[in-house]
Amino acid sequence: MERIPVGVLGATGMVGQWFVRLLSGHPWFEITALAASARSVGKPYQEAATWVVPGEVPEEVAGLTVRPCKPDLPCRLVFSALPAEEAGPIEKAFARAGYIVSSNARAHRYDPDVPILVPEVNPGHLEVTRLQRKQRGWRGLIVTCPNCSTAQLVLALEPLRRAFGLAAINVVTLQALSGAGYPGVPAIEILDNVIPHIPGEEEKLEREPRKIWGELSPDGIAEVELPISAHCHRVATRDGHLEAVSVSLGRRATLEGILEALSSFSSLPQELELPSAPARPILVRTENDRPQPRLDREAGGGMSVVVGRVRECKVLGWKLEILGHNTVRGAAGGAILNAELLLAQGYL
Amino acid sequence: MERIPVGVLGATGMVGQWFVRLLSGHPWFEITALAASARSVGKPYQEAATWVVPGEVPEEVAGLTVRPCKPDLPCRLVFSALPAEEAGPIEKAFARAGYIVSSNARAHRYDPDVPILVPEVNPGHLEVTRLQRKQRGWRGLIVTCPNCSTAQLVLALEPLRRAFGLAAINVVTLQALSGAGYPGVPAIEILDNVIPHIPGEEEKLEREPRKIWGELSPDGIAEVELPISAHCHRVATRDGHLEAVSVSLGRRATLEGILEALSSFSSLPQELELPSAPARPILVRTENDRPQPRLDREAGGGMSVVVGRVRECKVLGWKLEILGHNTVRGAAGGAILNAELLLAQGYL
Amino acid sequence: MERIPVGVLGATGMVGQWFVRLLSGHPWFEITALAASARSVGKPYQEAATWVVPGEVPEEVAGLTVRPCKPDLPCRLVFSALPAEEAGPIEKAFARAGYIVSSNARAHRYDPDVPILVPEVNPGHLEVTRLQRKQRGWRGLIVTCPNCSTAQLVLALEPLRRAFGLAAINVVTLQALSGAGYPGVPAIEILDNVIPHIPGEEEKLEREPRKIWGELSPDGIAEVELPISAHCHRVATRDGHLEAVSVSLGRRATLEGILEALSSFSSLPQELELPSAPARPILVRTENDRPQPRLDREAGGGMSVVVGRVRECKVLGWKLEILGHNTVRGAAGGAILNAELLLAQGYL
Amino acid sequence: MERIPVGVLGATGMVGQWFVRLLSGHPWFEITALAASARSVGKPYQEAATWVVPGEVPEEVAGLTVRPCKPDLPCRLVFSALPAEEAGPIEKAFARAGYIVSSNARAHRYDPDVPILVPEVNPGHLEVTRLQRKQRGWRGLIVTCPNCSTAQLVLALEPLRRAFGLAAINVVTLQALSGAGYPGVPAIEILDNVIPHIPGEEEKLEREPRKIWGELSPDGIAEVELPISAHCHRVATRDGHLEAVSVSLGRRATLEGILEALSSFSSLPQELELPSAPARPILVRTENDRPQPRLDREAGGGMSVVVGRVRECKVLGWKLEILGHNTVRGAAGGAILNAELLLAQGYL
Repeated sequence: MERIPVGVLGATGMVGQWFVRLLSGHPWFEITALAASARSVGKPYQEAATWVVPGEVPEEVAGLTVRPCKPDLPCRLVFSALPAEEAGPIEKAFARAGYIVSSNARAHRYDPDVPILVPEVNPGHLEVTRLQRKQRGWRGLIVTCPNCSTAQLVLALEPLRRAFGLAAINVVTLQALSGAGYPGVPAIEILDNVIPHIPGEEEKLEREPRKIWGELSPDGIAEVELPISAHCHRVATRDGHLEAVSVSLGRRATLEGILEALSSFSSLPQELELPSAPARPILVRTENDRPQPRLDREAGGGMSVVVGRVRECKVLGWKLEILGHNTVRGAAGGAILNAELLLAQGYL
Repeated sequence: MERIPVGVLGATGMVGQWFVRLLSGHPWFEITALAASARSVGKPYQEAATWVVPGEVPEEVAGLTVRPCKPDLPCRLVFSALPAEEAGPIEKAFARAGYIVSSNARAHRYDPDVPILVPEVNPGHLEVTRLQRKQRGWRGLIVTCPNCSTAQLVLALEPLRRAFGLAAINVVTLQALSGAGYPGVPAIEILDNVIPHIPGEEEKLEREPRKIWGELSPDGIAEVELPISAHCHRVATRDGHLEAVSVSLGRRATLEGILEALSSFSSLPQELELPSAPARPILVRTENDRPQPRLDREAGGGMSVVVGRVRECKVLGWKLEILGHNTVRGAAGGAILNAELLLAQGYL
Repeated sequence: MERIPVGVLGATGMVGQWFVRLLSGHPWFEITALAASARSVGKPYQEAATWVVPGEVPEEVAGLTVRPCKPDLPCRLVFSALPAEEAGPIEKAFARAGYIVSSNARAHRYDPDVPILVPEVNPGHLEVTRLQRKQRGWRGLIVTCPNCSTAQLVLALEPLRRAFGLAAINVVTLQALSGAGYPGVPAIEILDNVIPHIPGEEEKLEREPRKIWGELSPDGIAEVELPISAHCHRVATRDGHLEAVSVSLGRRATLEGILEALSSFSSLPQELELPSAPARPILVRTENDRPQPRLDREAGGGMSVVVGRVRECKVLGWKLEILGHNTVRGAAGGAILNAELLLAQGYL
Repeated sequence: MERIPVGVLGATGMVGQWFVRLLSGHPWFEITALAASARSVGKPYQEAATWVVPGEVPEEVAGLTVRPCKPDLPCRLVFSALPAEEAGPIEKAFARAGYIVSSNARAHRYDPDVPILVPEVNPGHLEVTRLQRKQRGWRGLIVTCPNCSTAQLVLALEPLRRAFGLAAINVVTLQALSGAGYPGVPAIEILDNVIPHIPGEEEKLEREPRKIWGELSPDGIAEVELPISAHCHRVATRDGHLEAVSVSLGRRATLEGILEALSSFSSLPQELELPSAPARPILVRTENDRPQPRLDREAGGGMSVVVGRVRECKVLGWKLEILGHNTVRGAAGGAILNAELLLAQGYL
C-alpha cells in the first residue's frame, strides 16, 4: 500500500519530535513535510531540532528542509504540535485550504464543532466535523486530542462510565517533566522538590472530560454535567503522569465488577486494528505498589494506560491510580491514533 | 533553671537522631541517657549511630555510652523512637516503672486510654492519662504523637474544624524519603519514579485524625465519625510531606473566612509559650505555586505547617495544599512539644 | 540448532536478573536451571526474585523452581552472579564437577590461571584455562569478566594501546546506582549528592587492567607494569558508568590518528559474529557534550562503549570520556559474550 | 560603626541574589542600591527578582526600586554579578567614575592589571590596582574573583604549593546546578544523567590558577607556567562543586606532611578577622567517603573548602577530593571577602 504523505507543524519542539519519532516507519503515513517557526525555516531538520526524545533523529527525515507553517505543504494530512498561542490561526488556514488537521494544541478544543477525540472513548464525535465543514465552509477539518492528563483519565474511566455511570471525579496528578516541553522546568526548581501547580492544567482537566463525554447536538458537542476537581503537581519524573483518582459511580458496583470492566475493555480502535491502537487499552495491575511511572509508562508502546490500587474510598466510593505516557498516549501518539481513525472511517 | 534529665529510646535510628538534634541545647531538657538495641549497647553514641540528619553529632552527647532500653535510665522522661514492633512492651515497662514516656511509635496509639496528642489540637486529651494510670496501675504514663502525615493534616484543618466543622476529607500525599527512615527507599527504585503506596500509611491517616478529634469518655477517647480517604505516595524529596486535600465543611464558608481562620490560628502551646511551639502554627502562602517541600519545610523551625492554594473544589467544597516537616513536626519535634505541654501542665 | 542448556548461580539478585533477561531468547543458550541461596530455594523464580531490571520476568523461566547452588544442575555451562564472599568455593565446586563457569564475581579474578576476559581485548587469555584444568585437576573451568568500571575502560583504550601503547592512565568515574546492586544506595544518601567513594572499586580499577593486558607465561598470566590511578564516585544515574580519562601514550599520536583507531576498532568477537558482540564495539561521538549516561547507555544493546570529547591533555597527553552500560557490558552481557567465545573456540 | 553604602549590579539574577542575601546584615556594608537590566528597572526588588536562593528576600531591600546599571548609584562600592557579555563596559564605566568594583564576572579577569583575587591565596595582587588606576586614569578600580571551580581549587591547593610546590594538576569536576544560574539546566536533561561538558569552564580552570599564582611585574601580573588539565561535568546536585584532583608536587612529601599543611592553613583574612573569612579556610575530613556536596557545602558558612580522601596517586603522586560552595565561596561570598580585604587594606 502506498503510504499517505503527512506533515508536522511545530516539528522542532518536544511534541513535534515525538510525532517524528512515532511516524517514522508508520505503516500508513509517511512524513513529507516538516514545518516550524521562522527561526528554523530553511535548515535541515536535524540541525533545527535540539533532539530530546529517545533515540536519534530518524534518518529518513534528518535532511528534510524545515518549511514555514503555510498551507502549501506537499501532503494532505498535518499533525499540529504548535504552541497554543500560534495554533489557532495556522490550523484554521490549513483546514480552510483543505488539509486534515490532527492537532495536539488546545486552540480549538472548546469549539463546539471541533471534537476532542479519544478513539476508544468518543469515536462518534467525528460526526461533528460535518457541521464544522459546513458552517465554516472548509474543505479540510480539524480534530484535536485532549490535554495529556485528560487523555489517560477519560480512557481509564470509560469502562466505569459505561458500566456504572460517573457522578463525580476527584483527581490529583503527579505529572512528569516532559509534559512541560523543552526546556521546561529548571532542574534547580524541581530537584528535591514538588511544584503544586501547573498553569492552566486544572482548568483543562476539569473541563475537557465533560466535552469528551458530551452529547452530539445540532449545534455541536454539548458538555455533560459532571463535577470534576483537579489538583495538579509537577514531580521529578521524566515521562508518565500518575493520577490518584477517587470516583463516585452512578450505580452500585463491586470490586470484581470494576476490575472486570477495566480489564476486559476494548473499543473501536482495537476492532479496526488501527496501527497505533494497543491490543489492550487498559492494563490492570494487582500489586499494591503499581502503577509506577518508570516501570509502567511504556506499556502498549506508551499507548495503554495502566491502572492499579483499585479499592473502596470512604469519601467518594472508589479510588484507583492511573498511569499514562504523557507524550505518547497523551500527545503525539493520541493525535496519530486520531488520524488513523479518520482514515479508517473514510474522512481522509 | 535546672534542666530536666531526659533519655531517648531508639536513639541511633533516624528519628532518634532527630530527637538528639532537637534536644541539644533545649532550654528545659537535658539528655542524660541514650538507649538502643543490643547491637549498639556499650558503644559511644557517635560510633553507634550512622548520623544522617543535618549537622554533626552534638558534642555533649557524642561520647555518651549507649545503654540498653531498660527502665533504669538516669532520667524521669523518655522519648521513644523505637520501631513499632518493639515499642509496645518497652514503653509499658518504662511507664510501669514511673517514667513519663513521650512516644513517636504507633504501638499504643489506638489504646483508648493513651492520647495521640497534637498540643495545638487536642491538649485536653492529656486528661485521659489519669484513667491510664488508674486502670493500669502505673506511676508513669504514655503519650503518643501521630504518624507524620496525620500530624500536619489535623493541625492545618483544626481551624476549619473549629470554625466550620468537618464533614469529609480526601487527602492525597506526596511524602518525603526521610519518612521511611534509614536506609529507607533504595535510590534505584525512586529515581525518575513515584511509588504509589506506603505500607500501613493510608490506614493510619484514615483513622488517627478520628481519635485526635475524638471525645473524652469514661472509657477513654471515643473516635469521632468522619469519612477520610487517603492515597499515599512516596516521591523523591528529602524532607517535607505535601498533601493535596479536599474537604467538605459542616457549614457554609467563604474563601476569606477560611483564610482568616487559618492565618489567625493560635492555640494553647502558643499561649503557654512552649519552647518548641512556633509563633504561628499555620502559615498561609498566597502564591499559586506554594507550598513547596524544599522552600517551605523549614518554616517555624520545621514546627509550622504551610498552607496554600486554598480554593473551591467542585466535588467536596474546598481544597488546599498542606506541607509539614515530617521528621520535625511529624515526629521528634511533635513528641518534644508533647513533653513540654506535659511539663507546663504539671504532669512531669 | 539445539540450544545449549545453561544455569544461573545467584539468579535472584540484580546481576542474576540481567543474566536471565539477556539469556531469554538467546540463540545459542537456553536457561534450564536457576540457583540461589537457601532463602529462595524451592520457590518459583518469579516469586523468589524482586524483579528490578527492565521489563517483566521472562515467561519461560517465571515458573522454574529455584535450586540450591550445588553442582547437580541440568546444564553444562553456568553463569555466576554470586556475591563475592560466596562465589569462591561454589564456583570451584562447579568447575571440579565439570561445569564451565562464566563468572561475574571477583573471587577468582586474581588467580594467575583464571583469565579476566574481555573478548575484544584479550581472547588469547582463554589459553590459560588449560593450565587451570591441569594444575587443579578440573574437568570444567572458570573464566571471569572484569569489574564493570574496568570492562569499559579496557575496551575503549584497547585500540590506543594497540596503535600507540599506554604509559599511564588516570581515570575518574561517575558510576550509576545499579552498580551497587539491590537495594544498593539509599535514596536519602544520594538525592542532591555525590558519594566520592565506592568500597574496593579503585583497587580493582587500578589492578584488573594490568592483568587483562598481561602476558601469558608458564605460570599463568603475568600482570603488566602500568601506572593507573582511579578516583571513583557514585552519582544519581540509573545505569551507565561515565569515566573521565587522561592517558599518556607510548608513542606520538595525532587527534585524527586516535579517532581513527577508536572508530575503526573491530576484533575477534565481531569477526566470529558472536550473538552478543556489537557490530561496533566502540562508538565515537563528536558533539562536545557526549557521551551522556541516559542518552548513550543503550548503544549496541548496552554492549558498545561510547567515547567522546577526545582532546589534548596538558598533563598526560590525551583525554576523553568513556561511557558503558555497567550491568550489560560491565556484568551479565560481558559474561555471556565470554561464554559465546568459549563455545566458538571449542571450549564448551 | 557607620556601615559603608554598597550597590549590586545584576542584582536580580542568581548570583545577584546571593550578594543580596550575604550582604543582608553584613557588619561593614549596607545595601543602598540594586541595579539590573532594563526589564527590571523601576520595579521594587522583590517583584523584579524571581527569588531562587534560600530563605526569603531580606526585608530591608524588598522594597528598593531597581535602578539602571549606570554610575550614579548612591554608594562607593559595587558588587558586580553582571552577565559576562555586559560586564566589560559597565564595570569600566563605574571604575572610571570612581567606584570600587568587586566583580564576579569574567570580563576583566585576564587583564594583566586586574587581579583575580582569593584573599587567602594572593592578597599581594591587590598591589596591581595601582598600575590599573595609573595606566587607565581611573579614580576607582576593579578586582575580580575567579570562576567558582577555580576558587576552591586554588584555596585547597595553596598550602601544598607553599609547602611543596606544584608541578602539575589534573582536575575532574562534578559541578552543581546552581553554577549554571537561573533557569540554567533543564530538569529533563539532567534527571538520571550527567552532562560531561560546561561551556568555557575547562578553559577557565586551566588558566585562572596560573594567574592567581602569578608574579607581580611592572606590566601587571604574569601567569606562572603550570600544566593544568580539567574535565568538567554537570551533575544533579543543587550547590557544592566536587573536584577529584591529582597533583604532582615539586618536592617530596608525606601523607602526614600534606594533611598537616592543609589542616593548619590560615592566611591574611583570618589574621585580619575579616567578617566573611572562615575561622578555618580548609577543613580536612578523614572518613573515606567525604567530602559530599549535601553534607559539606555549608562548612564555614559556605566559605570553607572541605578536603578529603588525601592519598597517593600512582600517576601524579597525590590525589584528593575538594568541595566548595560554588555560589558562596565560588561567587558572591568570594567577592564580598575581596571587598573586605580592600577595606582592611585601605583601598576603600
